[in-house]
Amino acid sequence: MLRLSPPGYQRFTQATSFEACYGGGEANVAVSLAGFGIRSAFVSRLPDNDLGRACRMYLMKHGIDTTHILPGGDRMGIYFLETGAVSRPSKVIYDRAHSSFSRITRGMFDWERILEGASWFHWTGITPAVSQGAADACREAIETAGRKGITVSCDLNYRRNLWKYGKSAGEVMPALIEGCDVVIGNEEDAELVLGISPKGIDITGGHVEADAYHSVSGQIMQRFPRVKKVATTLRGSVSASHNTWSGVLYDGKTLFTAPDYQITHIVDRVGGGDAFAAGLIYGLLTWGKDDERALRFATAASCLKHTIPGDFNLVTVHEVEKLMGGDASGRVSR
Amino acid sequence: MLRLSPPGYQRFTQATSFEACYGGGEANVAVSLAGFGIRSAFVSRLPDNDLGRACRMYLMKHGIDTTHILPGGDRMGIYFLETGAVSRPSKVIYDRAHSSFSRITRGMFDWERILEGASWFHWTGITPAVSQGAADACREAIETAGRKGITVSCDLNYRRNLWKYGKSAGEVMPALIEGCDVVIGNEEDAELVLGISPKGIDITGGHVEADAYHSVSGQIMQRFPRVKKVATTLRGSVSASHNTWSGVLYDGKTLFTAPDYQITHIVDRVGGGDAFAAGLIYGLLTWGKDDERALRFATAASCLKHTIPGDFNLVTVHEVEKLMGGDASGRVSR
Amino acid sequence: MLRLSPPGYQRFTQATSFEACYGGGEANVAVSLAGFGIRSAFVSRLPDNDLGRACRMYLMKHGIDTTHILPGGDRMGIYFLETGAVSRPSKVIYDRAHSSFSRITRGMFDWERILEGASWFHWTGITPAVSQGAADACREAIETAGRKGITVSCDLNYRRNLWKYGKSAGEVMPALIEGCDVVIGNEEDAELVLGISPKGIDITGGHVEADAYHSVSGQIMQRFPRVKKVATTLRGSVSASHNTWSGVLYDGKTLFTAPDYQITHIVDRVGGGDAFAAGLIYGLLTWGKDDERALRFATAASCLKHTIPGDFNLVTVHEVEKLMGGDASGRVSR
Amino acid sequence: MLRLSPPGYQRFTQATSFEACYGGGEANVAVSLAGFGIRSAFVSRLPDNDLGRACRMYLMKHGIDTTHILPGGDRMGIYFLETGAVSRPSKVIYDRAHSSFSRITRGMFDWERILEGASWFHWTGITPAVSQGAADACREAIETAGRKGITVSCDLNYRRNLWKYGKSAGEVMPALIEGCDVVIGNEEDAELVLGISPKGIDITGGHVEADAYHSVSGQIMQRFPRVKKVATTLRGSVSASHNTWSGVLYDGKTLFTAPDYQITHIVDRVGGGDAFAAGLIYGLLTWGKDDERALRFATAASCLKHTIPGDFNLVTVHEVEKLMGGDASGRVSR
Amino acid sequence: MLRLSPPGYQRFTQATSFEACYGGGEANVAVSLAGFGIRSAFVSRLPDNDLGRACRMYLMKHGIDTTHILPGGDRMGIYFLETGAVSRPSKVIYDRAHSSFSRITRGMFDWERILEGASWFHWTGITPAVSQGAADACREAIETAGRKGITVSCDLNYRRNLWKYGKSAGEVMPALIEGCDVVIGNEEDAELVLGISPKGIDITGGHVEADAYHSVSGQIMQRFPRVKKVATTLRGSVSASHNTWSGVLYDGKTLFTAPDYQITHIVDRVGGGDAFAAGLIYGLLTWGKDDERALRFATAASCLKHTIPGDFNLVTVHEVEKLMGGDASGRVSR
Amino acid sequence: MLRLSPPGYQRFTQATSFEACYGGGEANVAVSLAGFGIRSAFVSRLPDNDLGRACRMYLMKHGIDTTHILPGGDRMGIYFLETGAVSRPSKVIYDRAHSSFSRITRGMFDWERILEGASWFHWTGITPAVSQGAADACREAIETAGRKGITVSCDLNYRRNLWKYGKSAGEVMPALIEGCDVVIGNEEDAELVLGISPKGIDITGGHVEADAYHSVSGQIMQRFPRVKKVATTLRGSVSASHNTWSGVLYDGKTLFTAPDYQITHIVDRVGGGDAFAAGLIYGLLTWGKDDERALRFATAASCLKHTIPGDFNLVTVHEVEKLMGGDASGRVSR
Repeated sequence: MLRLSPPGYQRFTQATSFEACYGGGEANVAVSLAGFGIRSAFVSRLPDNDLGRACRMYLMKHGIDTTHILPGGDRMGIYFLETGAVSRPSKVIYDRAHSSFSRITRGMFDWERILEGASWFHWTGITPAVSQGAADACREAIETAGRKGITVSCDLNYRRNLWKYGKSAGEVMPALIEGCDVVIGNEEDAELVLGISPKGIDITGGHVEADAYHSVSGQIMQRFPRVKKVATTLRGSVSASHNTWSGVLYDGKTLFTAPDYQITHIVDRVGGGDAFAAGLIYGLLTWGKDDERALRFATAASCLKHTIPGDFNLVTVHEVEKLMGGDASGRVSR
Repeated sequence: MLRLSPPGYQRFTQATSFEACYGGGEANVAVSLAGFGIRSAFVSRLPDNDLGRACRMYLMKHGIDTTHILPGGDRMGIYFLETGAVSRPSKVIYDRAHSSFSRITRGMFDWERILEGASWFHWTGITPAVSQGAADACREAIETAGRKGITVSCDLNYRRNLWKYGKSAGEVMPALIEGCDVVIGNEEDAELVLGISPKGIDITGGHVEADAYHSVSGQIMQRFPRVKKVATTLRGSVSASHNTWSGVLYDGKTLFTAPDYQITHIVDRVGGGDAFAAGLIYGLLTWGKDDERALRFATAASCLKHTIPGDFNLVTVHEVEKLMGGDASGRVSR
Repeated sequence: MLRLSPPGYQRFTQATSFEACYGGGEANVAVSLAGFGIRSAFVSRLPDNDLGRACRMYLMKHGIDTTHILPGGDRMGIYFLETGAVSRPSKVIYDRAHSSFSRITRGMFDWERILEGASWFHWTGITPAVSQGAADACREAIETAGRKGITVSCDLNYRRNLWKYGKSAGEVMPALIEGCDVVIGNEEDAELVLGISPKGIDITGGHVEADAYHSVSGQIMQRFPRVKKVATTLRGSVSASHNTWSGVLYDGKTLFTAPDYQITHIVDRVGGGDAFAAGLIYGLLTWGKDDERALRFATAASCLKHTIPGDFNLVTVHEVEKLMGGDASGRVSR
Repeated sequence: MLRLSPPGYQRFTQATSFEACYGGGEANVAVSLAGFGIRSAFVSRLPDNDLGRACRMYLMKHGIDTTHILPGGDRMGIYFLETGAVSRPSKVIYDRAHSSFSRITRGMFDWERILEGASWFHWTGITPAVSQGAADACREAIETAGRKGITVSCDLNYRRNLWKYGKSAGEVMPALIEGCDVVIGNEEDAELVLGISPKGIDITGGHVEADAYHSVSGQIMQRFPRVKKVATTLRGSVSASHNTWSGVLYDGKTLFTAPDYQITHIVDRVGGGDAFAAGLIYGLLTWGKDDERALRFATAASCLKHTIPGDFNLVTVHEVEKLMGGDASGRVSR
Repeated sequence: MLRLSPPGYQRFTQATSFEACYGGGEANVAVSLAGFGIRSAFVSRLPDNDLGRACRMYLMKHGIDTTHILPGGDRMGIYFLETGAVSRPSKVIYDRAHSSFSRITRGMFDWERILEGASWFHWTGITPAVSQGAADACREAIETAGRKGITVSCDLNYRRNLWKYGKSAGEVMPALIEGCDVVIGNEEDAELVLGISPKGIDITGGHVEADAYHSVSGQIMQRFPRVKKVATTLRGSVSASHNTWSGVLYDGKTLFTAPDYQITHIVDRVGGGDAFAAGLIYGLLTWGKDDERALRFATAASCLKHTIPGDFNLVTVHEVEKLMGGDASGRVSR
Repeated sequence: MLRLSPPGYQRFTQATSFEACYGGGEANVAVSLAGFGIRSAFVSRLPDNDLGRACRMYLMKHGIDTTHILPGGDRMGIYFLETGAVSRPSKVIYDRAHSSFSRITRGMFDWERILEGASWFHWTGITPAVSQGAADACREAIETAGRKGITVSCDLNYRRNLWKYGKSAGEVMPALIEGCDVVIGNEEDAELVLGISPKGIDITGGHVEADAYHSVSGQIMQRFPRVKKVATTLRGSVSASHNTWSGVLYDGKTLFTAPDYQITHIVDRVGGGDAFAAGLIYGLLTWGKDDERALRFATAASCLKHTIPGDFNLVTVHEVEKLMGGDASGRVSR
């Protein structure tokens, strides 16, 4: 997906140019994982034109295996992003209807071959939101992964403006979540997608209460027996320029809590959730059963994302571990 | 329509930003005319979001009456433009399918009211190419203008990649041209749209032969009796950086020929034809029956367009007349 | 007036380019009102050259009626703005002497015609500061408005460096304020313009005491019986990057107080006072007697201005009302 | 003087930023000479603000002695430059009235001290055009230089739009030229300043006839007996993008002619004449009596100027000599 | 190698920023081939820091196999490029001494493994110029390729300023060329590297005589019996902005000649020779024995390179074939 | 030294351009002093190419005497700077090995002549870190200054990554410090260079305890009897975007403490220490024995540095004194 942003803090009506990068939920996760040294492939569909090629090259630059991206369809999905500050929120205009991706249909991808040798499959709630065909393809992938014993994770990632093909998230998502081992969401997703309510959380305030997620996570695991871990990102919006950031993970027994980060001078908050998902997958793949370490890695990694322009979280394992270790002082590294 | 171009001579796959402006056939003509001091309205449909508003404001800046632009529909039409040089051609990727404009339908515009008091209505072949609804609305406008005794002009403007809704230009355009008083085209349009062939013209060479247009223009006027003038732009493509530029106008009796301009260092050739149309309309409105003067004004105006970045021809009547008067020396004006 | 700023936080001596926009007190108010959907005209004088035309087009873009702007005079007024940060203040170099505007003379504007049908006339203390002629024209306008029963508002807007034609603000302003219904100022204006002292306010500290404005406002209304409302903006300068922002309004009986906003990451504070004035005028025009709502709208609107580059407050009524409603969380609007 | 230009080929009404540099006739000559290794001082007056300081620093960067620049006055002179292309000429808007420089008065400069130890004094026709005071100061300098036996050169540099203080060039210049040893001008200056007519030169064509300058130069030397050399730059304007460039020098006996250069892709032609003057002064100072070599150096140096953005001719003696030697091939220098 | 260029036509002393890209002889060839669809690996050594990583990612973006690039050494080689115009040549400052690449030593690369399965090995005269170790590694590669029956090509690419480790090109190159099947050079290389003289060629003029290359090519093939084809690029330098471009190829029997291209508005001529080499390799790999077609492809491909900013020739086979087919008109591709 | 930074908050792997400026410890001090009105010379060695010239011109712009800079050597030292934010630290890649400066050798500078008439000599710990020759030249300068009775100051400025020629700071620095009157360092330098430990300071926390510096300063003065004053900058790193800043000075009797500044929105922290040194030298030169005032001036000056892009502290004495006077409110200066 092509992202176009007016420079600096310009509003859309002031822009005479747009800064361009490529990104989008699953791609962001793949790039992040590749940056951590994990071999990653991105499966999608891009138009057979120079914008499609540019997007593919942008991913190749970051080491992504792009051989499963199908050329075809009519257009590149686009989203326009205006960067807010203080009390003025950032603003997104989606222009992804009719994209090559949204024209994906059942059977278009040979998931058996694609998933051969893979150990993890990750998808987000954006894919089934875009079209019935994308939801179908997503379901094929989840089922194939299930058959092959591949771990499946899902970021609920609810976007109200995307569900426009006649079905609601509540109708489509449950059947997909059934095939998942790990579920990731933010403070609102569980309620908006599944109607499971996080009580006592004031999402517009500067502070969040991690405890309420115990009950939400428990409800998810009860409803979807395959799910073994539920992780939640906790964003406190002091203002568009200053957020707090943390996360919790419930493994059915313990609710682990990550430290609270003060992100006082946000550079770019888009992709924060994807960076968390990638950090969590990295952590679970690397440290096996140490869920708390994985959660703390995920939270620190995604905290750093907020300081980097663009969708991608261009940080190394070493940088994340330095922050995990408690050094948030930002002293010059010479 | 939003135009997005990589800076300078970058290729699409190199771009990390896009220069943005708004434009498109009929809008370019309106802006040009407003710059010449003619009150102009632009009738179209734009999405009811910040991009739609930005486009409207862009037109308002140039003095266009935008009160007849309807808000609504799903998206802003976009086109991506890569600027060529020497032997590498410029490249356009259209992304205007499903635009608010393409979703125009019959009856959406109250042409009686819109055209009240107008003296000229101009349309281009791009409008009926986009969708059946746009073609229908265009036809309504032409018919209303006819009833009101308003002069109607058309720029054939054939774009092969746009005719995608199941009808060809040859099926749709003739019925629309029937209502026109003035027809404008380039060396190829008459053949591609109407099958009328300009013999003996080598469009890839650096030189064109104006004479052949006598027969083409005559054939058009024979087939469409209401048409009283046929004007043709003559572009000789020495290279992407160097074009020759001229024009001819046939009024049923005489074939007038404009001087040949050498545009040796093209800055931006998009909108050249629209600048010609606007110049011609200005000339015919201003100098009544002096068709040759109108042609020479149109050619000089559109020659200047090639030196200005963006779609719009931001020149004054005084500047065009200076060039018409023979001063192409480009000496500094202090 | 042309505003030229070094990019980012560059100092004047570092700049190899200047970012350019057009603005100035009354123009900023007009643009803000137009953005709120109020038909607005800007009355001024601009040089008859391409800079004058560019300025006019810049205003037209924002929907301003520019038909009362007279072409003529020698030059465009300019101001150079260096953006400060933390403990380094922003810096303004005025270069507006001898501007077309300053050469305005009595009788130059046909106020009867200009104000025909208007419901509100707004002026600022910058106009009479620039030249005797501008002061005279301002007086003509105020008197004409008075005769026509048009509400008149004034922003005191004291600028020490502008009063250079031989008279002081104290000599000129009172006669003009006499014709006003609404007076707007900041914490210092009343004292500097009228010698009316706001006691107990430490303007360099991070905090201000709204109460002291009761007495100041009362004194103004006593001295100028036509004045029915006095509004004051309250800026607390924690640093060049962080201000607090609020406002009070006294209607002769009650002192209404707006909430205190923390503007922790200022993008551009120029035009904050003008945004307040525009918000107040909008509120008073829209909600009749609900002065408190108007004050709260004005304060929220001008708070948002600080997040937008350039002089103009490019926000919608909806955005202001969202902030008025208490949502300063800056969460992404998708 | 501050020069402000829209980026690339943008028109004034398109600009959202201006590229900034400092320059102006005599400053350009001084910088050019400093680049050739000649110690050079620039005598002027700049406002005592950050723009004045920025200008001074800009000159210091190029090695100019700025100790004789007086701080004071009201404002920095500005000129706005729009860059043309092909048949669209570049456009200059002067905004230098009321500048600190124009407020120079007789006696302000201690010429005795300033010229102590100098071997050459150069002035241009722009100085006496700006104000009576500047003309007076210029005359003082010329007379002091005369008394001290310092060579005096003058570039006639006629600018119609600058002579606005009530006297014409024809009234003021002759008394100043009387004190000159070397006079430099372009094809038109002699006629416009002194009424001496270069016959048979078509300045709008692409070609010029050097021969006609014999008679013009002779007439100048007859009228001003102190003048020993008259040099003329010969610009043929094929278009705004392509000029021819040459020069002639008459020493009372011989008319030397420089080669004709084809400047087919002009980058920035402002300062071309100043670069010629500097080259000539360098040549005459360096090679004593070899006027032809000085002329050829001057012409080659100023030819190179056209390839460099900004007012200044940032080339070395070595680079000029390489071109003088006939190598205009532009092969990469590694 | 990191390339840093002042923007536009700025001179080094004007630059306040540098445009950055990565490139260099062999990398350019690899990227070009990858763009033509040929699987390509680049073998080199880059510092183990973020600049090394950025360079590697830049190559990955273009589809290059970078797995054989060794991390290590002290620094990234840099070259600074100032872009010339008309009579001012482009200027290169090399800063590649002590680079990681120059610290390559014999035995560092496992050529057996690297060349496994390869069909072509290409090297340029820059590698052995940099250091003895690089020359040694190059020799190992050539010898290994020879043993494996892999075709070896060499671009002589003489750079006077690079040979600084105590040996001359004449001492080192012959032993390396002995292992080559295809030799590529420009008009001067053969003489400067091997002392073989191309008679009758005026390299500073705008025209070149292809015939003289028959004798030079023949001499090379006589001296190095393994060489089966000698190709030469023919650049005529009309100016820094306008070159002519052609090429010849001798296969021992016939001297094939490519058409002469007029590159009238050069965008970036760096990498032109590398684009030729890549085009030739592509052609010879693709069309087997049709040397003339390969030569024509190489010449057209490298002609297009001159229109693309940066070192890389980002064109497709289709674009090259369109130009080969004679269409240099540069008409917009919509 | 050339400094190259990706724009804004881009990471190295994102950059397609670098912002360029010149700087480095001693140069920064010289520029700062020149800005305060102190005549300053910079003694160094720069390559005899356009980058060396650009660096010299950059210093000349700021009024530095560059006549003692020797041309020669192979290359310009470079450092790459990536700007961090919040919890992501800024990152420096040094590329200064083999620079012209590092090739300085004993006897290369005529210190007797250079220091003639000087009243102060300042050096930093970076010089002896770079090479044995630079350390030798530094020692010569210190000894010559000592003989001439010139005050010598040193900024310890420890950079672990620079000491690479086989000696450690601990081996080289003491002999140089012996010749110093004033020693400046940060919280860590004394320990890292001299093994003198500042107890009880947590450098990663947001707060520092000035008291501990009493003992450290005392130990330095005991070990180096010539040292009369020890000043220490105190940086508290809340994050990469927010530092606290203060300083202490011990004169053998009293430990003076400067106020604590909150630098909540850092623009550019590089050169902060150099700005402190320059402020201190200015203060000690200007106010003789008022060490406390000098310390407070130094701290305020260097606090302002953090708001200015680039290495140089471009502030005036007036601006520093305004901040010293307690006005950190950052109110616009009109």
